[in-house]
Amino acid sequence: MTYAKQQLSKEKVFRDPVHNYVYVKYQVILDLINTSEFQRLRRIHQLGTTPLVFHGAEHSRFSHSLGVYEIARRITESFAKNYPSKALGDGLWDNSEELVTLCAALLHDIGHGPYSHTFEHIFHTDHEAITRQIITSNQTEINAVLKKVSPEFPEMVASVINKTYPNRQVVEIISSQLDADRMDYLLRDAYNTGVKYGTFDLQRILEVMRPYHDGICFEINGMHAVEDYIVSRFQMYQQVYFHPGSRSMEVVLNRLLSRAKEVFGESIAETSQVPYLLLPFFANEFNLDDYLQLDDGVLNTYFIHWKRYPDDVLADLASRFIDRKPFKSVRFTKDTESLIPHLQKLVEQSGYNPAYYTSTDDSFDQPYDAYTPTKKQIQLIQADGSLVQLADVSPIVSAISDRSEGDNRFFFPKIF
Amino acid sequence: MTYAKQQLSKEKVFRDPVHNYVYVKYQVILDLINTSEFQRLRRIHQLGTTPLVFHGAEHSRFSHSLGVYEIARRITESFAKNYPSKALGDGLWDNSEELVTLCAALLHDIGHGPYSHTFEHIFHTDHEAITRQIITSNQTEINAVLKKVSPEFPEMVASVINKTYPNRQVVEIISSQLDADRMDYLLRDAYNTGVKYGTFDLQRILEVMRPYHDGICFEINGMHAVEDYIVSRFQMYQQVYFHPGSRSMEVVLNRLLSRAKEVFGESIAETSQVPYLLLPFFANEFNLDDYLQLDDGVLNTYFIHWKRYPDDVLADLASRFIDRKPFKSVRFTKDTESLIPHLQKLVEQSGYNPAYYTSTDDSFDQPYDAYTPTKKQIQLIQADGSLVQLADVSPIVSAISDRSEGDNRFFFPKIF
Amino acid sequence: MTYAKQQLSKEKVFRDPVHNYVYVKYQVILDLINTSEFQRLRRIHQLGTTPLVFHGAEHSRFSHSLGVYEIARRITESFAKNYPSKALGDGLWDNSEELVTLCAALLHDIGHGPYSHTFEHIFHTDHEAITRQIITSNQTEINAVLKKVSPEFPEMVASVINKTYPNRQVVEIISSQLDADRMDYLLRDAYNTGVKYGTFDLQRILEVMRPYHDGICFEINGMHAVEDYIVSRFQMYQQVYFHPGSRSMEVVLNRLLSRAKEVFGESIAETSQVPYLLLPFFANEFNLDDYLQLDDGVLNTYFIHWKRYPDDVLADLASRFIDRKPFKSVRFTKDTESLIPHLQKLVEQSGYNPAYYTSTDDSFDQPYDAYTPTKKQIQLIQADGSLVQLADVSPIVSAISDRSEGDNRFFFPKIF
Amino acid sequence: MTYAKQQLSKEKVFRDPVHNYVYVKYQVILDLINTSEFQRLRRIHQLGTTPLVFHGAEHSRFSHSLGVYEIARRITESFAKNYPSKALGDGLWDNSEELVTLCAALLHDIGHGPYSHTFEHIFHTDHEAITRQIITSNQTEINAVLKKVSPEFPEMVASVINKTYPNRQVVEIISSQLDADRMDYLLRDAYNTGVKYGTFDLQRILEVMRPYHDGICFEINGMHAVEDYIVSRFQMYQQVYFHPGSRSMEVVLNRLLSRAKEVFGESIAETSQVPYLLLPFFANEFNLDDYLQLDDGVLNTYFIHWKRYPDDVLADLASRFIDRKPFKSVRFTKDTESLIPHLQKLVEQSGYNPAYYTSTDDSFDQPYDAYTPTKKQIQLIQADGSLVQLADVSPIVSAISDRSEGDNRFFFPKIF
Repeated sequence: MTYAKQQLSKEKVFRDPVHNYVYVKYQVILDLINTSEFQRLRRIHQLGTTPLVFHGAEHSRFSHSLGVYEIARRITESFAKNYPSKALGDGLWDNSEELVTLCAALLHDIGHGPYSHTFEHIFHTDHEAITRQIITSNQTEINAVLKKVSPEFPEMVASVINKTYPNRQVVEIISSQLDADRMDYLLRDAYNTGVKYGTFDLQRILEVMRPYHDGICFEINGMHAVEDYIVSRFQMYQQVYFHPGSRSMEVVLNRLLSRAKEVFGESIAETSQVPYLLLPFFANEFNLDDYLQLDDGVLNTYFIHWKRYPDDVLADLASRFIDRKPFKSVRFTKDTESLIPHLQKLVEQSGYNPAYYTSTDDSFDQPYDAYTPTKKQIQLIQADGSLVQLADVSPIVSAISDRSEGDNRFFFPKIF
Repeated sequence: MTYAKQQLSKEKVFRDPVHNYVYVKYQVILDLINTSEFQRLRRIHQLGTTPLVFHGAEHSRFSHSLGVYEIARRITESFAKNYPSKALGDGLWDNSEELVTLCAALLHDIGHGPYSHTFEHIFHTDHEAITRQIITSNQTEINAVLKKVSPEFPEMVASVINKTYPNRQVVEIISSQLDADRMDYLLRDAYNTGVKYGTFDLQRILEVMRPYHDGICFEINGMHAVEDYIVSRFQMYQQVYFHPGSRSMEVVLNRLLSRAKEVFGESIAETSQVPYLLLPFFANEFNLDDYLQLDDGVLNTYFIHWKRYPDDVLADLASRFIDRKPFKSVRFTKDTESLIPHLQKLVEQSGYNPAYYTSTDDSFDQPYDAYTPTKKQIQLIQADGSLVQLADVSPIVSAISDRSEGDNRFFFPKIF
Repeated sequence: MTYAKQQLSKEKVFRDPVHNYVYVKYQVILDLINTSEFQRLRRIHQLGTTPLVFHGAEHSRFSHSLGVYEIARRITESFAKNYPSKALGDGLWDNSEELVTLCAALLHDIGHGPYSHTFEHIFHTDHEAITRQIITSNQTEINAVLKKVSPEFPEMVASVINKTYPNRQVVEIISSQLDADRMDYLLRDAYNTGVKYGTFDLQRILEVMRPYHDGICFEINGMHAVEDYIVSRFQMYQQVYFHPGSRSMEVVLNRLLSRAKEVFGESIAETSQVPYLLLPFFANEFNLDDYLQLDDGVLNTYFIHWKRYPDDVLADLASRFIDRKPFKSVRFTKDTESLIPHLQKLVEQSGYNPAYYTSTDDSFDQPYDAYTPTKKQIQLIQADGSLVQLADVSPIVSAISDRSEGDNRFFFPKIF
Repeated sequence: MTYAKQQLSKEKVFRDPVHNYVYVKYQVILDLINTSEFQRLRRIHQLGTTPLVFHGAEHSRFSHSLGVYEIARRITESFAKNYPSKALGDGLWDNSEELVTLCAALLHDIGHGPYSHTFEHIFHTDHEAITRQIITSNQTEINAVLKKVSPEFPEMVASVINKTYPNRQVVEIISSQLDADRMDYLLRDAYNTGVKYGTFDLQRILEVMRPYHDGICFEINGMHAVEDYIVSRFQMYQQVYFHPGSRSMEVVLNRLLSRAKEVFGESIAETSQVPYLLLPFFANEFNLDDYLQLDDGVLNTYFIHWKRYPDDVLADLASRFIDRKPFKSVRFTKDTESLIPHLQKLVEQSGYNPAYYTSTDDSFDQPYDAYTPTKKQIQLIQADGSLVQLADVSPIVSAISDRSEGDNRFFFPKIF
């Protein structure tokens, strides 16, 4: 039997708090999970600084990645059973796409590093490009596993994640307004934060999901389940992802890494506090291998050292991050924006350099996106086979889509 | 108002996935949570190597500590409402004990370090002694907060955790066969692993729990809820805590740290790979401050470095731990124990030094204890006010108590 | 001690699947539960014909009434603890209102009879008037219990349900857009149908609910929990309460009772099939006592008899109802309304009298109401103490409020 | 296509609170559900008098029967996928048994009548014999549906329920110590009572369940899930099924029907209160059709009438049952049994005829059975293919099996 079809002698089962079980039957999938690049995801929190506000949300990108795989597995299983393609181009599901779908689902976040959002801002890395590199570069264990399937398989998997894969059904299972990725993270983040809004009826959505010639769509009689998913998503953004507390800690982290870049960009003597694994990034000369050494714990370890570093700003910001001393924040609008320079002056008068101790941030800039009407909409298929867009038939979704969410905030140390 | 009674202007509420909400009304409690020693618990997994087998179990000692506090808060609230003492020695609840109870609940695990169980074996630290030190030593932020209540308050809190506090009710809320600690960890570990066995009816147990002159007891009509808790606990030990997979990873970690102690016990040149924060421990000359620098991420960061260290055993063991390559294991009994030297020889013939690559381990040695008949039993109070021991009236509990659980295993690399 | 304040020697606890436990401490409440009028609610389904479509929804008005009581109890407990009135007219909670609130909560649905909605249409009864009568008439056990509190107490309880009670806080706990009644029925109906949409965070809503001078309002920081409740309600109406299947069975029931009124309005001989307990209603000469004999089982018992009654229409409609043979239905709009006479003709040509076998029905006419902007809106209280209306700050709620929900349907036997 | 294999054009889906969804794809199954005999189960409570103590437990035998069907469907689906027979007698699953299994699961309780347990005592009916009759007699709609599959199909279905069907796997799916029936009722009764003890991991049990030559067994690595099921069952019996409150109401019902038999065994004049549908049973001359007219509501309707019947004992007992006035009870043992005559005398002195107002009852006599070691045990299959009995490897189960559960009680009116 070829490696692509090689099945485990006994299906491997992972206990999962969200999906109850994650089922693995292909050797390829198990081999991918066992690579060092994938195991590294255990050491990166799914939600960056959010656990500093919602303490339960301590789950990793590893757990999320398994969850996305499991949802994709259930989708392909359902498609293979209920909508098997009988002829090329009939708009149904060609099950020879199963493995590439599962691999893409499992690996879609493999390029994430520690505190991705802030890290990317400071060091100009791009987790999507790195994902592609990890999959296609011949230095990685993941690439080695994928190549055993076929020489072009790594490129296929990468192109699914990259959304250039020709079969739109495969692409949309992984990336669309209602894909395996979003369904898992909403359920998992809701489960772990303990927030009740994030739940929706996954089983029902999977039952009404179906392939069509241009991607995936949903039967109209499942509209309310889809609606509920959109509302849940909206509420998770408002309540969890855009929470001022975690954004404040992101600001502290941003200022901390900026300062570190200045401090360690030059040569240094004090050896025990040198962030060796970060030096390539400070020098802007990093390679994939450098990137793969990093995780949340590595960064935190440096921050712990820096609490005692002989640079007041660095030491203070490191303490604030490690010991969780968030900045305060106030909302501002177009009308009140002009007050910010005054606030910065007050901060300065209190002895803080505003360059390191203040920031503005809008929640639109967060690494998440709510239901966006500019992207391809969720399609509902009616009894007669025609498609309608969700927002055209659901007033709730329409209300949410039109809305410009989020807010602008000014962050500053607790001085007044 | 004194600091001891100082309440927050607005009760602080933490979302919690297990208890829904954790409520904090005292300034003392909030100040303790905001110390660097307590925040450090965010960076230490509650279950050591268990998340390497049950991937969902990524929660920290921080979350657990908040949970124990919350259960203790509910107990004292219930006692104050339903069983208020009216006269000294009437065996009811004296609510002036509330604050010491809450502080002890919150801080009971404050002395834990990274991978405590293995770490203590290798470096002869003692998390209980360190807990006491953190609370009573005048170098810590926690001690500073507690002292603001009263000069003797730190000692009071420490003695509750130490079980020498005169009021047995307070002691047993924190440490007994059915205490706030165990109830939280069972529910939390079950929630995060996704294992269904660990759940029981916390609300019912809290309702039937009551103070008596010598500690806490439970109304007889709540017996089945208590029984269910004992069965849940039994099953969690069998299924989760004693799982061979996580014990195997503990063995790898044990061997890795042992080898590191040898390697870094001597002077070394290669600076980037030196585990500065561990050196005091290798030299057996550490102080409290050294201990408080450590967390899971710090250790993992060294392990990541060591994957490339020019010592084959160290590098290999570090890779095994970081990339999750567990040892295999086989059960053995008295009858088959004599085969172990043969197995060790086979391991050696495969090129592995058995001193670093094999181990025996019995699950009795794990850092958990099941229902032990030698300790003070769970007391049930009958309608006439007399007490009976749970195991005397419950055949299920009796069956579990008599049983010697666990197994002995021999661990070795995958060679045959 | 007066009867009003008489507490049970031991709090009585009812296991409840939705609220976990229902707590009763007042003798009055227990005595009310034990009246024959209240016990009768066990024999009346909460959702009429809905269990014929959602088979799990077999719960009674008894369970719901206990649930409303329990929510009201939690509200008054919270108000007494957090917002106790200190001076007349300070807009806070006067806890001498506790008992009247609890009694009104428990009894708010006491006047419901079997299949209320249809029954009222046919027999021109009014469950609200009957509720008042049961409480205030001196023939009932409930009145006897209430009068023991004070002679005017029955009138007080009735006026709360009637919304004429002077204290608006009490009235709005029982009847408003977000009251104890609606919160219980949404949660309970969702729980029993198994529909996931109906859940919301009751605990959070209770925490942000507070009294103000003109009723009850909600803290602005709980807005999302309130929003989620409104969305859940909207979805329950769309998915469950307006379901064409249960409306169809209501239509069958309506036609069945209409025909029975004709058949048994005249004198009859065949004694075993005579619906003795319904005769006063057919004759339009019923009294309260007649009404209190009825329940779902009584009506069904007559229907079972009528399956063999020598009137073809009556026998056929009885079979359809008892054996669950719903009519078909089609939606119609203004544009297609003119086709209905043609459809009726087709039904007639198939041998059915359209008067007994067809009906139009719009879901607006159902015994439920969604979020209605014409009623007093949900008020949110901001940090500065000012009030805003929910729909003004929540685009989701605004979207739902503006919408005219429901549909018009034409019902007919399965002939084409 | 034959009727046996005729599938619905679109799978029919029933929302179910316990299993989320119940899936029906065969026309036969839908036709059986739509028979009047099966619809009648909607009007019979699953738990008789238990909802009078656990108010949430208002679910019907209809819901339970759908649930048993759904579990059986999942079992056969799993067996067909994972253990398909390849040769006669290979001990694997022959999927031509699917339909008979599903029909037997759906119909296993079809012979139940109102308050079965007491009804059978008084009228000497036998729900198992009636089940067989409903399936095989040619007067029923169910028989007509089944005969369309094949002339011998009704007998096949009946023999499965009767445990005489040759294929033991089919029999044990429906009736064994761990069958679809028990799994559904435990989960459903726990869900509706709100008791937490009754839950166990159905999904896991279904995964480790497998056919073997002599029935069904369970993989040893699923032992803890099976253990948990046994413990749950034990606790449900102790807490719910043997509850003195519902047994007391059974006693009242028993006495009420006994008295009615005496009163209505003779000719009577007062027509409106004559229980026409019960007369054949009083006369001991009933047929299947008479039996199928009955349900809980029919009996209750008579009881409502009898509250005013001119026989004091009948009227009083009817009031006690309808208005829920349970008898008191005391436990007695061998040692205290001799006191019962004295108690009966006291009851008599208070003006009650002990023949109608007292009873002894032991919970062993209840219509449920716990884990009984005399029946065929649950078999676990080990890695080497050998079987062990659950109680031999599980000390918890062993403890429960040995125990003689339940108690003896003496019931009497509230007089002292």
